[in-house]
Amino acid sequence: MKKSLVALALTGAFGAAHAQSSVTIYGTVDAGVSRTTHTANDSTQIGKRDNNKLGFRGVEDLGNGLKALFQLEIRYEPDTGTFENVSRPLFQGQSRVGLQGSFGTVRLGRGLSAFQESVIAFEPWSGLPAVAGYQTNLQVAGYTSDPLGPAGNSANRFSNALFYNTPVWNGFQVNFTVATKEANGNPAIIGRGTAAAPQYAANSEASANPYSVSATYTNGPFAAMVAHERNGVETKLSSVAASYKPIPALKLMASYQTQDQGHTLAINPDTDAWVIGANYTVGPGKWLFGYGQKTPDGVIKTKQVSVGYEHSLSPRTYLYLDLAQKKTPFVPTARTDVDQNHYALGIHHNF
Amino acid sequence: MKKSLVALALTGAFGAAHAQSSVTIYGTVDAGVSRTTHTANDSTQIGKRDNNKLGFRGVEDLGNGLKALFQLEIRYEPDTGTFENVSRPLFQGQSRVGLQGSFGTVRLGRGLSAFQESVIAFEPWSGLPAVAGYQTNLQVAGYTSDPLGPAGNSANRFSNALFYNTPVWNGFQVNFTVATKEANGNPAIIGRGTAAAPQYAANSEASANPYSVSATYTNGPFAAMVAHERNGVETKLSSVAASYKPIPALKLMASYQTQDQGHTLAINPDTDAWVIGANYTVGPGKWLFGYGQKTPDGVIKTKQVSVGYEHSLSPRTYLYLDLAQKKTPFVPTARTDVDQNHYALGIHHNF
Amino acid sequence: MKKSLVALALTGAFGAAHAQSSVTIYGTVDAGVSRTTHTANDSTQIGKRDNNKLGFRGVEDLGNGLKALFQLEIRYEPDTGTFENVSRPLFQGQSRVGLQGSFGTVRLGRGLSAFQESVIAFEPWSGLPAVAGYQTNLQVAGYTSDPLGPAGNSANRFSNALFYNTPVWNGFQVNFTVATKEANGNPAIIGRGTAAAPQYAANSEASANPYSVSATYTNGPFAAMVAHERNGVETKLSSVAASYKPIPALKLMASYQTQDQGHTLAINPDTDAWVIGANYTVGPGKWLFGYGQKTPDGVIKTKQVSVGYEHSLSPRTYLYLDLAQKKTPFVPTARTDVDQNHYALGIHHNF
Repeated sequence: MKKSLVALALTGAFGAAHAQSSVTIYGTVDAGVSRTTHTANDSTQIGKRDNNKLGFRGVEDLGNGLKALFQLEIRYEPDTGTFENVSRPLFQGQSRVGLQGSFGTVRLGRGLSAFQESVIAFEPWSGLPAVAGYQTNLQVAGYTSDPLGPAGNSANRFSNALFYNTPVWNGFQVNFTVATKEANGNPAIIGRGTAAAPQYAANSEASANPYSVSATYTNGPFAAMVAHERNGVETKLSSVAASYKPIPALKLMASYQTQDQGHTLAINPDTDAWVIGANYTVGPGKWLFGYGQKTPDGVIKTKQVSVGYEHSLSPRTYLYLDLAQKKTPFVPTARTDVDQNHYALGIHHNF
Repeated sequence: MKKSLVALALTGAFGAAHAQSSVTIYGTVDAGVSRTTHTANDSTQIGKRDNNKLGFRGVEDLGNGLKALFQLEIRYEPDTGTFENVSRPLFQGQSRVGLQGSFGTVRLGRGLSAFQESVIAFEPWSGLPAVAGYQTNLQVAGYTSDPLGPAGNSANRFSNALFYNTPVWNGFQVNFTVATKEANGNPAIIGRGTAAAPQYAANSEASANPYSVSATYTNGPFAAMVAHERNGVETKLSSVAASYKPIPALKLMASYQTQDQGHTLAINPDTDAWVIGANYTVGPGKWLFGYGQKTPDGVIKTKQVSVGYEHSLSPRTYLYLDLAQKKTPFVPTARTDVDQNHYALGIHHNF
Repeated sequence: MKKSLVALALTGAFGAAHAQSSVTIYGTVDAGVSRTTHTANDSTQIGKRDNNKLGFRGVEDLGNGLKALFQLEIRYEPDTGTFENVSRPLFQGQSRVGLQGSFGTVRLGRGLSAFQESVIAFEPWSGLPAVAGYQTNLQVAGYTSDPLGPAGNSANRFSNALFYNTPVWNGFQVNFTVATKEANGNPAIIGRGTAAAPQYAANSEASANPYSVSATYTNGPFAAMVAHERNGVETKLSSVAASYKPIPALKLMASYQTQDQGHTLAINPDTDAWVIGANYTVGPGKWLFGYGQKTPDGVIKTKQVSVGYEHSLSPRTYLYLDLAQKKTPFVPTARTDVDQNHYALGIHHNF
């Protein structure tokens, strides 16, 4: 016997440098020059318009139409090289593993909730976290999917979750996400409590299982969505959205959302919001237009108008220009507002 | 001359996108639903049964039987996307580089100590950190290889170490690891000191060089190991283990360990433990059985019984079910115990 | 219609496991045994001589001589598996994206400044952060490019920057970097202020845009550089350097630098430094020699002499030995000095 116990481990570790077949590396680097007036840092910045990603994913064919799949996605800031928002998780984008078959797709881990993953298709900036876009605020009526995560964490994902997507029946699909109540490191949330006895203490469990459900329908040039979600502090979000392509180069879209924070806010718990937008493709260019309003109970409205242009250099690379104006409460609870002007100019590269 | 100094750097940085040949990417995603009663978070969780890995490794043939090899292994939590245990090092799994030849294998860096790397072969859950497994507690008699690491760091690795594995002679191999005394960010360890003057202050150096040695022997269906290790606070661990396969589908295994904390504990410094187990393969299934006891001096015993089942979907993917019951001291120093029940159901995917 | 909205996302995420063509993975693992006397940890250590890297880069041909390029480079400590210096950014090495064409190369993000990227060619250890090398201290006259970064961050990079390299004209090239004033998490810098009112408060913006410019010239065996840089606290660095190869196996080099900290220091603001060195290649071996002095105003000189040897095992792998002696102020402001002796022996592997 030449085989040794540790040598076995070394074989696993240092086996033949065979061709790599089971992992695909992908990603996005998006960097540009931007400025947003009336922000904490009201000066020219190097920043981003899209999420910056470095991901690893794979699909394994198990036979009989069954597949195993995984995806791990790092997020980072291109201007400083740090993790997204400096402190977000390593795989902020997602970390999921699961099975896909005739029954649909089942995955476990961390990722966008069913609602957040579906609503992107009805947002004129395709769900980019761009200042000119609507995804992180107006498109979700200010709602956050993960109020019990660590401070600074992302607002549209569930950790500790099971994700299920049905197959598509005649253009119709249902997506469902449910998370455990596991504590996940949140700072204290006062809510209906007091500073001394907050409604949700630091690192508290969810008071009910977070869940998210979306139903989508696609029929030729028409698509629609209805969705409902409840997060770990029992805030609820409902959304309807639709899009229509009168000609292939033009996509029109609209969505309406309402957030109910009645579980944590004693007064003014509701926020409504709507967004309309259009994408128009002409030659190597794509124009983006959007307008939306967010109306929290008892607080001044936020209004935003945006226009963007993307100029393709290849299927993987484009230059962009965004212009936006947002009328936003100067102090969140005040009745005065301020006009924020924003521009961004940069390059977006997929690999 | 067209060549420039910085252009040289750019050539290095952005040379032809040649085929990647020297790096293999590998990893594991393991996620499941689990519950363990009588724990801080006694509710259903999304968790893991195995270490989750994303690794990079390579072997370079240097000629004359000599090889250079490296391995870098990220560890992460699939349910939240964070680093393992939130704060462990980037390459928690290992970061090592070295040479392999007729003299054996020499590596420098961070990785499992010789004992920890060898004992895995005699653990019924193959050294997984599963609650139903024995590796992190009973299989090592509660011993930790790295007491001088930062809080929350892993318990079975040496940093700042040299790793040597001999070649295999007639089934016999010796493995040796020795680490420097370098300070590595530990919290204060009181030990035989006082709170005001702890035996090991925060970020203190090791009082002696940590080392680990294991000898393994394999002969057909029989394998055995004897090992000894001393960590940075001069706690000692001795271990003997053996396994036997009466038929190829069945592996029986047993191990005995004893920990001596005499250097830091004035009373009751010894802990003994033993584990017996079996693996039985039948068709696409593999059954795992284990039983073990840990007996610290002057403290109530820990007893654990476990059964597991792995159902292969492919050589790379399986589903698993673990059931375990652990009789464990309710308070570590008390003479009352509590029955912890555990189940886990999930998917394990290698890529 | 079988296509669904979320299914579209899944196609993106889990499409055919096609051959990976657009990303190159590269890196360095360098680990060795070293000791430096008169340091905080005056004992044998496992350490590094080079930066340890794990990088991802790609080039996309856009046609008409235009290319898109990106590079993301993780840095880590091989002896402990942590990020470089424990806390540096994920992509400490660099995170840049840009375009290359007949106009030169434009990139956005984080990376070495024009001066730092150019001066490496005139340093006998090729800019390695080795103790025996000169890059991080004498070669830059103690200057740091990023005084407004978080504590422990690297000293030779700009974040939030635009990088431009001209094409090479008759061996001549100009490189230019400019950064925004964005706050980046610095600790307070007292400078000409007081502890209560520091000149640069914690997380303050730069008082002027940091910039760096270098011009390089290459003509057969001769190369030269002149550079100037100003960082976020308006410290200035000027440098001239040249190298000559009398025979192909021998490279002689020299550089002179002067730092002006007049904006933050009321007295003794200037530091001068010079370094001379040689590289001599013989068979599989390469000898490195260096000598340099740093003379801060009003503080004792630092003098360093070093010799190194690299023995190639392959074009990607070598063993090294460094010996150095540094006469350095025992306390920075004192007029007594101490002889630090240093040796390092290790392996350097590129992948």
